[in-house]
Amino acid sequence: MTSGYPQRLRRWQRLVPRGELLLDETVRAAHAGDRWFASHLPDAVALPRSVRTVSKLLRLAREDGVPVTARGAGHGYVGGCVPIQGGVVISLARLNRIKEISRGDFVAVVEPGVITKNLQERCERLGLYYPPDPASRADCSIGGNLATNAGGPRCLKYGVTRDYVLGVEVVLAGGTVVRLGGRTHKNKTGFDLARLFVGSEGLLGIVTEATLKLLPLPPYRACLAVGFESMRDAARALAGVFSGGFLPSALEIADGFTLAAAERRTGSRLLAGCRAFLIVELDGHVRSVRSELRELETLLRRFRPVTLRRGLGAAGCEKFWALRREFSYALRDTGLTKLNEDVVVPRGRLEDLFRFTSGLQRRHQLLIACFGHAGDGNIHVNLMVDRSNAEMMRNSRRALDELFEQVLAWGGVITGEHGIGLAKRRWWPQAMSPAGRRLHRVVKSALDPLGILNPGKFI
Amino acid sequence: MTSGYPQRLRRWQRLVPRGELLLDETVRAAHAGDRWFASHLPDAVALPRSVRTVSKLLRLAREDGVPVTARGAGHGYVGGCVPIQGGVVISLARLNRIKEISRGDFVAVVEPGVITKNLQERCERLGLYYPPDPASRADCSIGGNLATNAGGPRCLKYGVTRDYVLGVEVVLAGGTVVRLGGRTHKNKTGFDLARLFVGSEGLLGIVTEATLKLLPLPPYRACLAVGFESMRDAARALAGVFSGGFLPSALEIADGFTLAAAERRTGSRLLAGCRAFLIVELDGHVRSVRSELRELETLLRRFRPVTLRRGLGAAGCEKFWALRREFSYALRDTGLTKLNEDVVVPRGRLEDLFRFTSGLQRRHQLLIACFGHAGDGNIHVNLMVDRSNAEMMRNSRRALDELFEQVLAWGGVITGEHGIGLAKRRWWPQAMSPAGRRLHRVVKSALDPLGILNPGKFI
Repeated sequence: MTSGYPQRLRRWQRLVPRGELLLDETVRAAHAGDRWFASHLPDAVALPRSVRTVSKLLRLAREDGVPVTARGAGHGYVGGCVPIQGGVVISLARLNRIKEISRGDFVAVVEPGVITKNLQERCERLGLYYPPDPASRADCSIGGNLATNAGGPRCLKYGVTRDYVLGVEVVLAGGTVVRLGGRTHKNKTGFDLARLFVGSEGLLGIVTEATLKLLPLPPYRACLAVGFESMRDAARALAGVFSGGFLPSALEIADGFTLAAAERRTGSRLLAGCRAFLIVELDGHVRSVRSELRELETLLRRFRPVTLRRGLGAAGCEKFWALRREFSYALRDTGLTKLNEDVVVPRGRLEDLFRFTSGLQRRHQLLIACFGHAGDGNIHVNLMVDRSNAEMMRNSRRALDELFEQVLAWGGVITGEHGIGLAKRRWWPQAMSPAGRRLHRVVKSALDPLGILNPGKFI
Repeated sequence: MTSGYPQRLRRWQRLVPRGELLLDETVRAAHAGDRWFASHLPDAVALPRSVRTVSKLLRLAREDGVPVTARGAGHGYVGGCVPIQGGVVISLARLNRIKEISRGDFVAVVEPGVITKNLQERCERLGLYYPPDPASRADCSIGGNLATNAGGPRCLKYGVTRDYVLGVEVVLAGGTVVRLGGRTHKNKTGFDLARLFVGSEGLLGIVTEATLKLLPLPPYRACLAVGFESMRDAARALAGVFSGGFLPSALEIADGFTLAAAERRTGSRLLAGCRAFLIVELDGHVRSVRSELRELETLLRRFRPVTLRRGLGAAGCEKFWALRREFSYALRDTGLTKLNEDVVVPRGRLEDLFRFTSGLQRRHQLLIACFGHAGDGNIHVNLMVDRSNAEMMRNSRRALDELFEQVLAWGGVITGEHGIGLAKRRWWPQAMSPAGRRLHRVVKSALDPLGILNPGKFI
């Protein structure tokens, strides 16, 4: 045991169904961290099979003053589910039923442990569409997506996880179970409390069921993959897409460093000679997409691309998305560790951001690879570091300070989809005004007066 | 003075800039009600020209324990801004500047008194688009839209007001000014507190500035106006539109009673012989819209419409929307008062809802006209009553009880866009569970411990 709750937790074990609270070291070690580098051994791991157990655990936690940290699939990037003060990790992995997908009402009712990709595939087989598509969608769960208000490439056109949450069942600190929102696509009954829990990083309550809005599945999609000589050309082409009245379903960008790494890894000739690269995807009815793609191509050719390729239909698009997914692996091939930041700048600042990060590289002698959801202004700025090199680590810390300071000065934000968690706690005071932080504490104390839920995080 | 704050308010007058706090009866009477029938004279009306005055007033209100009710343009339908406990009405009408419309960042920064239509027209001249379009957009203001999370026909495709709020400046009870969110299209910095204020009906704080997300303006739109022999046929055609993979920018419905009234008023032959009517609008690039409109027409003809007309381009669509806007006036021509409810049912329950309301008509000898945002399941159920007829008023009350009970039993909600306010306070306990109401009180007490903001409403 890492902290002091052993006897109490043995008592808890007798109060919940057998096998739903585990104390053995292997299980605890498997629930100590996420995809970020921090980790902390919990004193116990709960794997509840019902909302009743979740409620019971939160009642016990209040009685005994034991910290509780909820956990989705453990694929977060900011240490958000690391039980930094020990206590109990409640994994929602076993609450993984898709309870309903309604073709009439265009809703899905799911438990938090459902893997995002599974839900999407089930929906698509019925002609329905659940758009939010974090890169880790094959591994992450709806519960984690709710906790972080997950995004992804398609969020440019379709919005983020929050925009699809119609209702939740949530267990509050103390164990009360409350249902908020519902299954209608519009609802103005009282405050918007259901969505207050979306993006709350496990600090306000534990979601045990979500009712999600679905759309009709767009019958077709197609994309253009366009390489440019410079990031400046790419940024201007991107602005041209919007001023042409297009709202693509995705608009991704990658910089020269990322492309060079990807070219080395994949041997793809597509990227040769490109210092910047855009993927622009459109979706909708077949003829519409085809005619818009032609217009878009004409528009983009005005920005003098080095290369321009079409991807028609799901399979045609998939070629380019497969390449896009290689970016992360390609960066890992460098042998360096990727410090993956997810800043967002106002859309008009994209060109400035790329110019700034190339300055950062020079000043701090670091490799920095940028790619991401350009349409949103949400760019993954990846500092490539050697963890064993103390000087490099110091430089990266300084570079991040400068990056965040500049992004905030532009009216940007330090996180677009990953959250604050532990990783960005250091910058929380710059990212949120004193009055804003006070308001966070007011809301937190109202909902969790004893500070039981996910303690030690940004509040 | 209706309640007991006269001396205090005279002191306040000396503490705020001249002309920003008015005590004379005419001004007070003009700020006593909204579009619903309840009204209550405030003891004073503030017309602040700056956030500083709003903050000062809320500080004084806390010191003196004076109720404060914020007011937009007074076009609400539920008595939400009626100062039912007297005190001070703060009208945001003078805070009406469009501070910025950014073509690069796709945001608008506005004060709450800006009239929604003015903002939309300014945006459209720049090729930008602010979609939320409540029917009263020529009269209502962004502040009121935020307070009620206003919707409108286009919300089917584009979402409601909340989905366009990126950031707010809000004055909290007690006078603290806090800025939440920002100008980026994605943001995961802390809790989603900016949007907690959206739809909070003036109970949690007073928004003094909002940063709104804009989209590229779709270059073209077109619509089909389709009449059917029965509501059943219309409801099935509607389901067919969605299963055909279409997500129209609007999908409106009207029933036979509404159509008959509109025909009498306008003399339009378009509606002859129709017992149900759909307007389906598509927007996007010209060629896409034209080809999708053809596909949609083929699809809809399978549902045996009595009439089907095309509206091409903004002017072509406007013909049908002008007719749509006549619905309300046509109902008024009956000489009866329209009790305008805005229930929402799960999308698959539309046909059931229309069947149920025709049963209600028979059972309670009332005229009921239904029209509205069918795509969302958000139907305006209008009970037509003669206020001087006591029996009819009793019947309408009973009919509403039955309607709301049935809608809630289907998993629907009693309000989709208007809010609870005073009008639906009686049904609040059915519409929200005890735990949900408790949570509302917890949040309210945390943000407004003295209950100064808009007291006497649904909490």
